[in-house]
Amino acid sequence: MKKHNFGAGPSILPQEVFEQSAQACIEYDGIGLSILEISHRSKEFTAILDESMALIKELLQVPDDYSILFLQGGANMQFNMIPYNILNEEETANFVETDIWATRAEEETRLYGKTNIIASSKVDNFTYIPKDFTVDKNATYLHLTSNNTIYGTEFFDDKAYPIPVVCDMSSDIFSRPVDVSKYHIIYAGAQKNLGCSGITLVIIKNEWLGRAKRPKSKMWDYSIYAKNNSLYNTPPVFAIYTCLLTLRWLKNLGGLAEMEQRNIAKADLLYSEIDRNPLFKGHAVKEDRSRMNINFIATNPDDEALFLEFVKPYNIHGIKGYRTVGGFRASCYNALPIESVEVLVKAMQDFERSKA
Amino acid sequence: MKKHNFGAGPSILPQEVFEQSAQACIEYDGIGLSILEISHRSKEFTAILDESMALIKELLQVPDDYSILFLQGGANMQFNMIPYNILNEEETANFVETDIWATRAEEETRLYGKTNIIASSKVDNFTYIPKDFTVDKNATYLHLTSNNTIYGTEFFDDKAYPIPVVCDMSSDIFSRPVDVSKYHIIYAGAQKNLGCSGITLVIIKNEWLGRAKRPKSKMWDYSIYAKNNSLYNTPPVFAIYTCLLTLRWLKNLGGLAEMEQRNIAKADLLYSEIDRNPLFKGHAVKEDRSRMNINFIATNPDDEALFLEFVKPYNIHGIKGYRTVGGFRASCYNALPIESVEVLVKAMQDFERSKA
Repeated sequence: MKKHNFGAGPSILPQEVFEQSAQACIEYDGIGLSILEISHRSKEFTAILDESMALIKELLQVPDDYSILFLQGGANMQFNMIPYNILNEEETANFVETDIWATRAEEETRLYGKTNIIASSKVDNFTYIPKDFTVDKNATYLHLTSNNTIYGTEFFDDKAYPIPVVCDMSSDIFSRPVDVSKYHIIYAGAQKNLGCSGITLVIIKNEWLGRAKRPKSKMWDYSIYAKNNSLYNTPPVFAIYTCLLTLRWLKNLGGLAEMEQRNIAKADLLYSEIDRNPLFKGHAVKEDRSRMNINFIATNPDDEALFLEFVKPYNIHGIKGYRTVGGFRASCYNALPIESVEVLVKAMQDFERSKA
Repeated sequence: MKKHNFGAGPSILPQEVFEQSAQACIEYDGIGLSILEISHRSKEFTAILDESMALIKELLQVPDDYSILFLQGGANMQFNMIPYNILNEEETANFVETDIWATRAEEETRLYGKTNIIASSKVDNFTYIPKDFTVDKNATYLHLTSNNTIYGTEFFDDKAYPIPVVCDMSSDIFSRPVDVSKYHIIYAGAQKNLGCSGITLVIIKNEWLGRAKRPKSKMWDYSIYAKNNSLYNTPPVFAIYTCLLTLRWLKNLGGLAEMEQRNIAKADLLYSEIDRNPLFKGHAVKEDRSRMNINFIATNPDDEALFLEFVKPYNIHGIKGYRTVGGFRASCYNALPIESVEVLVKAMQDFERSKA
């Protein structure tokens, strides 16, 4: 029986993506070959890549002066590749620290230039997104993390800043419409809302290609990916195919506006129960609550282990919280159906009744 | 109908790998989750990773003082990561240039230290492996490419050299037993003999971890992968699973000694026909002929297009040669059954008869 998968990532993808991927492993599109054995220079893979990029452009309404790149290595690799490609040695990048991932991004950047953490919610265990901060107008860019998987905070507005903005959207990309023009770089590991692990999306304003002056390795140079349509070397063919299938699913269900409505409905349902049920309470402040990663704890710490045991017969998977937060984390990515949230809410209510 | 896939890579994998991968996309091992949605920290994936590394160690008889790493980015990424991790600025690496991939490796190395191409068969269109060369004893390492996909040359002996050896085995790893102790680093993109594209194997002598003194990015530092069992960040879960399935297949058929016998049988069959059939001739000199990539041309250039058309009814796929060599390239990787080679040989004989 299929589990209700609330795992934080790699995480649930649409059921049809699982089925179509499986079919392609046996035989891709009736060509007598598995997707796992086709050349990345074949007409079949070229079509997969082109359609994937076209759907990303369409769904996110990416302006024409941006390049869409597929890379390997996850967001962690981008923590390093972004300053390597963008920041010159004497320049400064600003960071808003909202999670350990922002911290990691800032640490890697020190290898290439200067950094300045202009706001942080670290002392409050990342329960909120800092809002009152002043951007250093001489800095080269401001780095943001739109959704914070561990702590369950997220921002939903694409604000304008006086300097270019770089945003890690690994865990909420494609969960809502985004004004791409407000960012110089958007990047995301695929393994939450886009596809299986092993592929990373970078959307970059063309004027920034080749910005940093240092001599660059070909595989670490965004320009090489842009010039070669992400085919300078062998890309992860299967992982990109799972992205295409997920993007098609997104388009067919109505695109990002519809996806956002579904995500709001799921989050509202679960947060309502967290706020109502005296046995639980949320981690993040209400105005910054993530729709993707819903973190909550047991009001009585003794209930934590009990509830994790209690949900097992409900076929609920992956709700144990990260060790630095404790409690529970219900990740409600795009592909998680509202029915799974309903089951979790019912389990919370049954748990309350069982304790009455 | 399943094609006879002679493609150069990504290339054929064992049929059971296609079938078991497909099953895992639907549900992995009866756990109610797809392989595409399980956490890289789950006990299921930990078992996949551990068994993969244990099988690599067993099949290649990797000595205990080596680390086995899984990385992303293919061999191209290693062209850069190797000097980044190993070569200090004032040091020199030696290269034997046997293919454009060796050239790429040498070019990337110039970013970090000095390079010296001590032997090359470039002027002869890479028809042979240079043998009479003198290693610079003060160099930090000698870089070799054991098999050359484009030109179809390969060496089979793991020679001792007066300096450490780094070897790109992307297209022949696991095709024969290897004396790992003769190398300080062996690296290979997976997509020929190990698994699907998107995962790269590095086997490195522990004393070389942290060798180069430059400050390093975490994602570009072998030490970080070694310390974290290749789990510092999210690895490509599915791609690693295809490696495990392929490694199990290799072990079940009898390991690398048996695999080598099968590869010799396939290569002998095809080279015999190339040498016998007056319509074809081989590209590489006989003593350096690759078992993995068998390159040959039409004696009469007009026959090239005719033969490519002629083989279509035989369900033969992927034998068009690389543009710099022309003619044909029949890649006979581990998973290609001898039956496919028999079909190609029959097509060559039928072609000869059709022209008589």
